Formats: sequence, structure tokens, C-alpha cells
Amino acid sequence: MAAKKTVVLASGGIDSTTTLAIARSEGYEVYALTIDYGQRHRREVQMARRAIDALGVKKHLIIPLDLRLIGGSALTTTEKVPKTSDYKLKNSKFKIQNSKLNIPPTYVPARNTIFLALALAWAESLNINDIFIGVNAIDYSGYPDCRPEYIRAFERMANLGTKAGVSGSRFHIHIPLISFTKGEIIKTGIALGVDYSLTHSCYDPDKKGRACGRCDSCVLRLKGFREVGIPDPVEYQIKIKQD
Amino acid sequence: MAAKKTVVLASGGIDSTTTLAIARSEGYEVYALTIDYGQRHRREVQMARRAIDALGVKKHLIIPLDLRLIGGSALTTTEKVPKTSDYKLKNSKFKIQNSKLNIPPTYVPARNTIFLALALAWAESLNINDIFIGVNAIDYSGYPDCRPEYIRAFERMANLGTKAGVSGSRFHIHIPLISFTKGEIIKTGIALGVDYSLTHSCYDPDKKGRACGRCDSCVLRLKGFREVGIPDPVEYQIKIKQD
Repeated sequence: MAAKKTVVLASGGIDSTTTLAIARSEGYEVYALTIDYGQRHRREVQMARRAIDALGVKKHLIIPLDLRLIGGSALTTTEKVPKTSDYKLKNSKFKIQNSKLNIPPTYVPARNTIFLALALAWAESLNINDIFIGVNAIDYSGYPDCRPEYIRAFERMANLGTKAGVSGSRFHIHIPLISFTKGEIIKTGIALGVDYSLTHSCYDPDKKGRACGRCDSCVLRLKGFREVGIPDPVEYQIKIKQD
Repeated sequence: MAAKKTVVLASGGIDSTTTLAIARSEGYEVYALTIDYGQRHRREVQMARRAIDALGVKKHLIIPLDLRLIGGSALTTTEKVPKTSDYKLKNSKFKIQNSKLNIPPTYVPARNTIFLALALAWAESLNINDIFIGVNAIDYSGYPDCRPEYIRAFERMANLGTKAGVSGSRFHIHIPLISFTKGEIIKTGIALGVDYSLTHSCYDPDKKGRACGRCDSCVLRLKGFREVGIPDPVEYQIKIKQD
């Protein structure tokens, strides 16, 4: 029998690396897709290569697409990356747990739509119907394109706008992490053999690649490791209380 | 009052150039977006610049995105571009007028989804809610991503996956050409002052940029000019019967 195949969007972060490990554990042969979008934390792209290689994939495609041309985000302009504590001070409405109405400046306009569109194109070109993406609607930064209703709408659109729309086959967007806490994601990954020292989350690393420990992404990551009760294996610029 | 603003996807072809002219005639200040996707007919990109400049826009952004990395189409690989007559001979089911079940090899996987995703990102970054795209479901090549039900599904997804999803503003994808014949498109453009000698449609031009006259795109274009009863002002490699 031919192996089940899937395209997995993989950035080298905790969520997408765990998602890739889940797809592998479900028996999929993985075509990993990384978008090098000119993010200020481009270290992400090198890390993606290491994290993905460690898990074993059929192919890893890196597509350059310079979203700095579009701008509109602290991650693709020279705007300062906000630290969670800045938010807490300046905007009392900001809540990590329920920030649906507080989209932070690190939101990149339509990023997941662009990434999923490219994953869809590659999947269609390879005759693959399954796509995995590590979106999460619990411990997330409040990005609208991480919500399940958005993913289902993308899936519906994908099935109308491709050959699937006329052939009767169907794309399925898998979102295995959607209702996990960050701790549950990390626990799952550890059980599947993910080496989180190879992952990278920080939006604002220093020149040595050390995480800042204070951006949304670091704060969520550290919350996850605290939840599991183990130290985060990556290096930080500041001293982190890990328990 | 601030001018109404819109992002228009503009390739330099008949449909998107006419769409741009329609947006201008409706009073929009236009932000034109061209994707240089590694298409074999890249002359399209130079022509887009000329056609767009002639109509007057606020800004013209060209984003490079090499879809040859993804492949899956005669337009992004070294596969031969089919000529309509090849189809007629080899596949009796092929009909230009109703080819919904005969997606030709020039279909580029998820191209409009990728293009609309980038238009959406730019629009969101500029605080623009309107996007124009020149899709057409009458005289078209049978691409699934040119159908109105697909466009409405994209719109719905866009409104869930962006700030609009939480702010209450709404993206609207305008498809003014959707039910026009090619002749009606050309008539409309002429009335709005479009110079079609600056547009380009051929999938397989020669080194001098002359159109082949035999690919789907040329056949549809020529059908349009015949419908209007005027000669196509662009140069062809072969002698064309224009009446």
C-alpha cells in the first residue's frame, strides 16, 4: 500500500514541530513546508531545518516570500517587538488567555492564509489531500487566523478553488493542537521524541540566537514548560525562573 | 473626504487591466499588486507595469514568489503549453465554453488563493477593505478558482482570518467581470479608455514577445476581439484571421 502523505507547515517552533511529530506518529510520510518570509527572527528558518531533519521527512521545501514588502506587523518591519509586560502596563485589556479582541502588533496580516495557500498549492501539485498546521486557540497570542472557524472556512474555500472542487476528492486541514494548552503540546511532543532544544520560538532573539524571554512567544513557551514541570532547554538572554 | 481605496490584482492581461479601469471609474484610488511567480510568460510582468502605469495608480507593488518551486502546471514547469487545437484533437470532451470538468494543464495549483491571500495581506496592512480581481466564469479556461462560489468562500474565510474577524469591518472581493463574455470585457475596457495594445495574454510568447495565437489564452482573447468586431492590436507569431 502506498504511504499516506501530508504537507506539514513547519516553522521550527514548538507547535509546528510537535504537529509534524504527530503527523509522523499517525503514519504520514511528511512533506514539510517552511516559508522564509523575511521575519526578523529568521533564525527560525535555520532552526526549522534542524528540528525537521531530526524528525525525518520525505522532503523539506523552503519557499522565500518577502512579506516585508507588505509590512503591517512588528515581525516584518522595524517596529519594536512588544514585550508582554509592556502590554500589561499599557493596555489593561490584554490577556494572554483570552485575547481575541486584542490582536497584538506581532500579528502578520493574513499570514496563515498565505502559508495555507502555499501548502495547498504544493499539496495539490503532489496529489496530496492532507495538510497539517499547528494552530492553537488556547495558549495563543490572539491571532484571528488561529481559530478553528477560520481553518474550517479555509478548508471549504480550498475545496472550491482547486481540482478537488470538480474531482470529488477533498482537502482536509488537520489541526491536532487546536484545543491543547502549551503544556499539553510539550507533553505530547516529548512522548513522541521531539527534542525541544532544536526548536525556536522567540520573536526577538539576540545576535547569538538567545531568546528574549519577554515577548508573547517566549512567555507562552515558558508557561508551557512550567506547566509540564521541566526546564526549557533553549538559551535565554535573561535569567528565567523555570519553576 | 478620504478617497476610497482598493487593492487590484493586476497581471497585465485583458481581464485584470479592465478590472483596474473599472475600479478607477468607480472612484477608487488603486493599489495594484502583481505577483511575479516565475511564469514562463514573464513578459506579463513587464507588460503589467506598462498597462498599469497607463491607467494611473497610487502604488504598484510587484511581489516575487517563485511558484516553480511548487510546480504542477504547464505555466511553471518545462511542460509544453498545450494549444487549443491539441485539446480538440486529443480530448473530445474539451469545450472552451463549458470546461468545468476539463481543467487544462495550464491551471496553476491554488494560484488565485495565493494571489488573493497576498492581496488580502496588503489590503489589511493598508487598512483597505476592498479587493478587485478579474476572474470570469464565462469565457475562461475552466480553472476552478475563477468561479463565484469560490470567491465568496474566500471572502468568508478572509473575514474570519484577519483583524476584520474581530473588529466588525468586512473585506469585499469585487468580481466585476464574472458574468461578462470576453467581448463584453473588451467593450467595457474600450469605453473606459484601456489601451489593449499594452496588455498581454499569451501563455507561450516567442522571444520577441509575440503571442502564439493558439494557446487557450490567445484563443479566448481573439474570440473577444472578434465578438467586438475590431482587430486585436497585439502582435502574433502566426497570421490571424481577425474577422
